[in-house]
Formats: sequence, C-alpha cells, structure tokens
Amino acid sequence: MMLVESLLSVDKNSQIPVYLQISNGIIRYIRQGTLKPGSALPASRALASSLNVHRKTVVAAYDELYAQSWVDVIARKGIYVANNLPEVSARSIDKTVQKHKLADSTSFKVDNERVNHRSEFKALPEGNITFTEGFPDTRIAPVELMVREYRRMAGYRFTHKYLMYGSEQGSENLRTELARFLGETRGLHVSADDILITKGVQMAIYLCAEVLINKNDVVIVADPGYIGANEVFEQAGAKLALVPVDEQGMDIDAVEAICAERKVRMLYVVPHHHQPTTVTLSSERRMRLLELAKKYQFAIIEDDYDFDFHYTCGPILPLISADYDGNVIYVGSFCKTIAPGIRIGFMVAPKNFLQQATRLRRHIDRQGEHLLEEAMANLLKNGDIGRHLKNANKLYHERRDTLCRLLSEQLCDLIEFKIPDGGFAIWIKYRNGLDSALVSEKANELGLSIGAGTDYYYDRSFKHSFVRIGFASLNEKEMIEAVEIWKRAILKVR
Amino acid sequence: MMLVESLLSVDKNSQIPVYLQISNGIIRYIRQGTLKPGSALPASRALASSLNVHRKTVVAAYDELYAQSWVDVIARKGIYVANNLPEVSARSIDKTVQKHKLADSTSFKVDNERVNHRSEFKALPEGNITFTEGFPDTRIAPVELMVREYRRMAGYRFTHKYLMYGSEQGSENLRTELARFLGETRGLHVSADDILITKGVQMAIYLCAEVLINKNDVVIVADPGYIGANEVFEQAGAKLALVPVDEQGMDIDAVEAICAERKVRMLYVVPHHHQPTTVTLSSERRMRLLELAKKYQFAIIEDDYDFDFHYTCGPILPLISADYDGNVIYVGSFCKTIAPGIRIGFMVAPKNFLQQATRLRRHIDRQGEHLLEEAMANLLKNGDIGRHLKNANKLYHERRDTLCRLLSEQLCDLIEFKIPDGGFAIWIKYRNGLDSALVSEKANELGLSIGAGTDYYYDRSFKHSFVRIGFASLNEKEMIEAVEIWKRAILKVR
Repeated sequence: MMLVESLLSVDKNSQIPVYLQISNGIIRYIRQGTLKPGSALPASRALASSLNVHRKTVVAAYDELYAQSWVDVIARKGIYVANNLPEVSARSIDKTVQKHKLADSTSFKVDNERVNHRSEFKALPEGNITFTEGFPDTRIAPVELMVREYRRMAGYRFTHKYLMYGSEQGSENLRTELARFLGETRGLHVSADDILITKGVQMAIYLCAEVLINKNDVVIVADPGYIGANEVFEQAGAKLALVPVDEQGMDIDAVEAICAERKVRMLYVVPHHHQPTTVTLSSERRMRLLELAKKYQFAIIEDDYDFDFHYTCGPILPLISADYDGNVIYVGSFCKTIAPGIRIGFMVAPKNFLQQATRLRRHIDRQGEHLLEEAMANLLKNGDIGRHLKNANKLYHERRDTLCRLLSEQLCDLIEFKIPDGGFAIWIKYRNGLDSALVSEKANELGLSIGAGTDYYYDRSFKHSFVRIGFASLNEKEMIEAVEIWKRAILKVR
Repeated sequence: MMLVESLLSVDKNSQIPVYLQISNGIIRYIRQGTLKPGSALPASRALASSLNVHRKTVVAAYDELYAQSWVDVIARKGIYVANNLPEVSARSIDKTVQKHKLADSTSFKVDNERVNHRSEFKALPEGNITFTEGFPDTRIAPVELMVREYRRMAGYRFTHKYLMYGSEQGSENLRTELARFLGETRGLHVSADDILITKGVQMAIYLCAEVLINKNDVVIVADPGYIGANEVFEQAGAKLALVPVDEQGMDIDAVEAICAERKVRMLYVVPHHHQPTTVTLSSERRMRLLELAKKYQFAIIEDDYDFDFHYTCGPILPLISADYDGNVIYVGSFCKTIAPGIRIGFMVAPKNFLQQATRLRRHIDRQGEHLLEEAMANLLKNGDIGRHLKNANKLYHERRDTLCRLLSEQLCDLIEFKIPDGGFAIWIKYRNGLDSALVSEKANELGLSIGAGTDYYYDRSFKHSFVRIGFASLNEKEMIEAVEIWKRAILKVR
C-alpha cells in the first residue's frame, strides 16, 4: 500500500482538481502495469493523510475510478484494481510490430515546391516589446462577452442543434444580423442569402482565387501590397500584374493600361488603409475602377477589412454599394474587431458566384464553428459589437495621436510619415535611405521587435526604407519605451 | 417627451438586459432621425414609471447613452440628444448612389460547374424523428466542459496570446497532448511536430488532395464509399478507380489489379467501420495494402475517424503504426468525440508532406481557432476527453444493442443486417429488393427521416436496397417510435 502513496503527488495550485490528479495518477500507474489487476488500493483515510488532503477528496477520486471501471469495490474488504480493465486494447496488425517512429519522409513523391510560401509564423522573442504591423490590442478583446454567450448557450436545450452539421453558408442568425449590420454601417441592402461566412478574410480570398482563376489568368494587385493575397492568387495559377500606389490609392491609369493590353480576370483592392501604405482609395478612383470593371468585365475583390476603424473622417462607402452590374465581391472580417485569433470573416457577392464559393467551402472544411457563429450573432444583435467598436475606436484614436506625437517629438530628424485616417498602423519612411531590414535587426538586439519590411514589395530582394508600425496594440507607457529603443537602433545603424 | 415613452417598449423575458433594450431603442430612434439632435429626453423618473421599470434601470440606460456619446447631460437642466452624434457616417462615393440591391449575377464569367457537388445541407423537417446515417448524440456532448475551459481562459492574463496570430500548424499544447493521446490509444510514437491540426477530417482530406493530386492522377476508393472524399479528389483533378468492399473491407486483390495496370497516386481507406458498410479492414489485408503501397509507391490516406468507438472487440492498430516506409497519411477527428459542429481534426504524416499541407492550410484560413484548440488541449490533458469517451462508448454500446434487438424483434422479415463492432451505424439490406429511396420517401411522409441511400454508390442512378441507420443519437423511447414508423413505411412500399 505504501507504493501508491509514494507514487502519487498532488499540486493544490494546479488547475486540475485534486481528486482528478489522484485518480489520473492511479490510472497512469495501472496503465503502465505498476499497479497490477487485483492489487489493493490504500484505505481512503490512510491515503488522505499521507497526501495531506481531505478524506472526501480521496473518496471522490475512488468514485471516479469506480465510475470508469478501473477498480472493483468489495464490500467490507476494500478497493482493488479491477481484474477486467476497461481499456479496449487495440490489436496489432503485425505480430512483429514495435512502437516505432514515423518515417522521416514519404516514399511516394511529394513536390516540395508545390505550395508557395514567403514566410511562416514565428513566435516573437520572449520579453521583447513589439511594434506589430498593425493589429488590434487583444487585451481589450471582448472575450468575456463571448464566454457569456457560450455559457448561455451551454444551458439551452436547443444548443445541441448547433452542435450538429448545419448550413455550409454559415449560421443563419449570424448572416441575418450581419446583413442588418452591413446595412446600418455600409449602406448595403443585402439579405442573409447574399452572405457566406468564412474563416477570416483569408478564406474569402482563397475561395475567390480557387473559383475564378484559371492557369495564367491576369490578376491586378497593388505593389507594395498584401502578400497574403498575392501568394494565394499565384498558387491558383494567376499571373500577377503589379500597379503602383500613391496618395490616393491604387493607380487607376496603370490599371487601365493593363486592361487595354491584356485580358484581366480579377483585381484585388484594399480600399481603406491600403496594406501596407494606409492610404484610402479616393471616391473618384473608385468610380473609375467600377467603370473599368464593367467595361473589361473583370472581378473586383474588395477587401474592406478596415472599414470599421476611422478616427479623423468617415469611411467611404464600399465599392459594392455603387456596383449595379455585379463586378464586386466584398470581403470583410471580425478578426480586427474582436481579435485575429477569432476567425470570422464574410463574403458578399452575387448569387451565382456565392454558390460556387459555398460549394468549395463545403469541400474544404464542411462548415464553420456554429457555436462561435451563434455567439457572434448574439453579440451583433444585442449591440455589444457596436459598443465595443465605439470604445475601440476611441482608444485607438487616442493611441494613434499619442504615437504620432511621440514620433514627431522624438524621431522627426530620422523618419517621415503622414498621420493615417484610421486603421491600426502608420506607414513610415526612414530618412537618408536607411535600410529597414538593418534597423529591424539592430532593434531586435536591443529588445524591440519591428518589421524588416520584407513582405511589402513583390520583389523581395528590393531594399527600401519603409516600415509599417502598429499603434493600436501598445499603451502609452509601452509606446514610450518602444520609441526610445527604436531611436537608439536607428542611430546605431546610421 | 411623450414621444420617447410611447416609442419604447421593454421585454423583461428577453436575454438582453432591460437597460440595454432602452438605450438601444433610443439609439435606434436617434439614428432614424425620429429623435433629433438637441431634443430633450424624459426625466429618468418619468420614463421609469411609464415603462414600469425601476428608476435605476433608466439611469443605467442613460449612463450607457452618455458613455457612447449619444446624449449630452446639461447640469440642472436635463439630458439631450447630442448635437455632435458619435457615428462616423460614411461618405458616398457617388452622389447619385441609392441604396440598391446586390446584382443578381456577376458581369464577369463564373463557371457554374466549377465546383462539383452532389448534395447540399438540408435542414430536416421539423418534428420528424430522425435516423441519422451515424452521428453521435449531441445531447451528451460535453459542451459545459468546453465552456468551463473558455471561462477559465477568459480570466487568464496570458489568454490574449491565444487571440493573436499563432502557428498555422495549430496549438502546440494541443499537438503535444494529442501526441500523447495517440501514443496511449493507438501506439503511435509521434511528437507535436508530426501533427497538423485541421478543421475536421474534411480539411485533412482536402489538403491531401490539393497537395498530392495532379490532373488525371489515379486515386483508388471503395465503392460504396464516402462521397465527401470522392468529391474532393475529383475536384482536385483525380480519376477515381473504384474497388468493391466485402466482409473484410476493401478488396485488396482489386487494388493490386489496378496497380498492375495503371500508375496509382493515392488510395483512400476507412479502416474501421467503413463508410457506409461498417466493416473493419482485416489485419491480413492491412499488411497486404502496406506492401502494395511500398511496391507501387502510392500514398494511403487512412481516415480512422472511428477508432475511438468500439464495443465488441478492440480496434486494430492503425496502418500507420506498421508503416516503416512513409506511405501512410493518418487523419482523424474529434468531431465524433465531441460533436460534428466542433470542428477539430488532425493529420499525422512524414515531415516533407506535412510541410506542404501546413503551407496550404495557411493559404486557406491562416490558422485554426486557438481558443478552441487550447480548450481541447486542456480537456485531453486533464482526462476529460478520456472520461467522456468511456461514458459515450458505454452508452452507444447499449444503444447499439437496443436497436439491434428492436430490429430483430420488429423487422426480421423485412430487413437483414450484421451487428457492427463499433461506430455509430448499422448497414441494413431491405429484403425482396425493396428500393431504399421509396422507403425513405414514404417514411418521411409518416414522420421519420431516414436515408434514401443516394450517396453510397458512385453511380448515383444505381437503384439498391441498402440503408445506413445511426443508433447513437436516439434513446430507447425514440428508437421504439422510429422503428414503429419505419415498419409501417416498409409495409406500405412492399
């Protein structure tokens, strides 16, 4: 009996209830064969005293073991490891099979260049302060509101409906609420049927690419631009046609010149706070773009992920709100509204396209997370999202102003920038042609993570002096610290 | 002042707090222009009395309006609709633009046959009792455990980490726990690096298809088989080669004959409880299949979604546990363990393949739901998943026995079947060549939803007498009712 007591230990600070620590510990030793079938377990009082826990805790642990059929209780004798262990033990297909490691590589041929990629997720160095390239502050994400909705749903009898297979187009409640929200905020007159719920904007872009692009189709994108979209278009077989971006957004003359020469299949545009330069496409260019799309019959993917964040002047209504001909596919997301890790996006498009996208989505992952979608529907319905957006806009507005003031005060000799109207980031140019990558490297050593500018331009080897700096995810104290380190890094590189 | 009071109404039974109903109502009328900037709102006491709520409720509503900048408070005078409304109102790009409906179809060309599809999700008729084709009972899904984990996480400071972008391979905690779980249950000796977290088995199949299949590549599948996989393979450009299934699973002689004639790229197999016939691939055939894969260098997609549910005898260890050469890609899921709507699956594969699949996953939706993945990691770690599986196995074992008994008692003249070893469904043949589709139609009229058998065979027009009946999602009372209706339906069709 001493065996069990000496094997087990409990950690009262653990998140796992103590009784489960005890029962799981015993199960582990039964599985390993250390505790053999038929062997006696210590009396609850004795075990409690040696583990220094309440006797009821040990009783609860034994109840758990009994419920799981790991032990037999013999009246007036005690508790014994069960003779018929409850595990359905798996049968080996090969008598000689040993527990062996996975093969290092496949014996069938895999094309290691099949899927293109520029960068993979890398965790940031621990302890570094970080200028993101423009993310919301996850510390203000309304997670407790989402949890409130989950909790509410867990108590409902009808919740089991949302745990089954459902519509591949996404929760009908969410689509209904979203249609209302898009009407109120963006003047879109759409119904639930016009919307496909996706996993973030990323999936919406992927679906557009896979449904529309054939090998060597021409897709127009801005350069610098959003590499995450470029990768997907090229993976689908597209030839990218790059157009420059200026103070009013994408250069529409350049778009027109391409259209005159080649058949264009699709154009991808971020109309608010262009990624990475943060400029907004002007009203006049929007109208010209719609005319070109109509004339040359190409699709516009309008990635308006940033519509809901404006500080100085109002946003401009989406292209799709003035599209009478069916040229625009409108995509957006709640990943900036709630948090990047909460993957809910949407696509609004004419029905013939939406049907193809929906079918493909079914192939990919069958459907979204219905519980999450229902929670989001409730948060939209009861106004929580609207309230959160107002609060977040106020906070980010202040943070934008704070960071711009700090930059003007501390770094005006070293950088230049324009104050962005909205969004999460400032587009900055180092003076004197300083290489962004070198500053990034030096800053990293000093304890500041900051972009190296490698993912803005299509030509990755292009050395430049730009960097995109997020202001939304740092508070004032953090900003002061970050700017101070950044300044030191720039001065060291000069 | 009477205006506001007469416009507003409160529903004390609503889930939305009464104060929010009041403030949201007022915001609505401000937005609509019914309440003009500068107009006075009623005193809290007066409004409380006319709405029949406590005065503090109205005060809370007014506080909310003030916090959101919808109203101004003028000391000793009262509360007024703000003159500068907080909405950032969007600017139209075109003066003539009217709120208009989305175009019915695109002006650019969309191929309406681009994405293949056999069936779309259809909600079942309300009130009907349902024989699913084999799903778990979502009424026993451990949703409250998941919510407990969410609640726990919402309170942690480090949770904001999981709300940011993270690894496209999935939560490291979940992959670590899963590696341990796969070791304990399936004898796999894998580490977190060998695993990619997916959205259900569906996404794992999609990734395999897109990474491996080139146009006209031969993919071997069983017929009858799982249509959801066939669709994905064909969409990726594959030519399917069909092989029959008998009492021991896929016919390996037929596989060998195909390999001898054509270059085979991939084979898809459900080794436990083949979909739809519920047979398990025998050990001897598993070894032969591995030998063939090695000899002809094709990939085996082993879809072992049903490993964790066995009642009569133990499962057989996965093919991958005896694969020394790197021929097998192992895919599985928690969609049956928790609920179909909780989309977590996984893929275990050699690193060169896994890297390509991971890159593609990044293109598709960037990453999974980290919060959900972290919750699942905790549930695996603290043994909750193991406990739930034990309880569910016990319940489903009983339900299998109950339904088999009922079928034998009530329908032995009308149908024949074998008792399945595990899983969620029974494969049934109507006697006398009765057409499954006709029985389904008649049963539907009588209030029972039951499969029409249209999605089992590759040739959809093939008339047959088989049907797949789920036993896991109905309790005994429901089963008795369902069998009774089913019997009447069969008798009417005969």
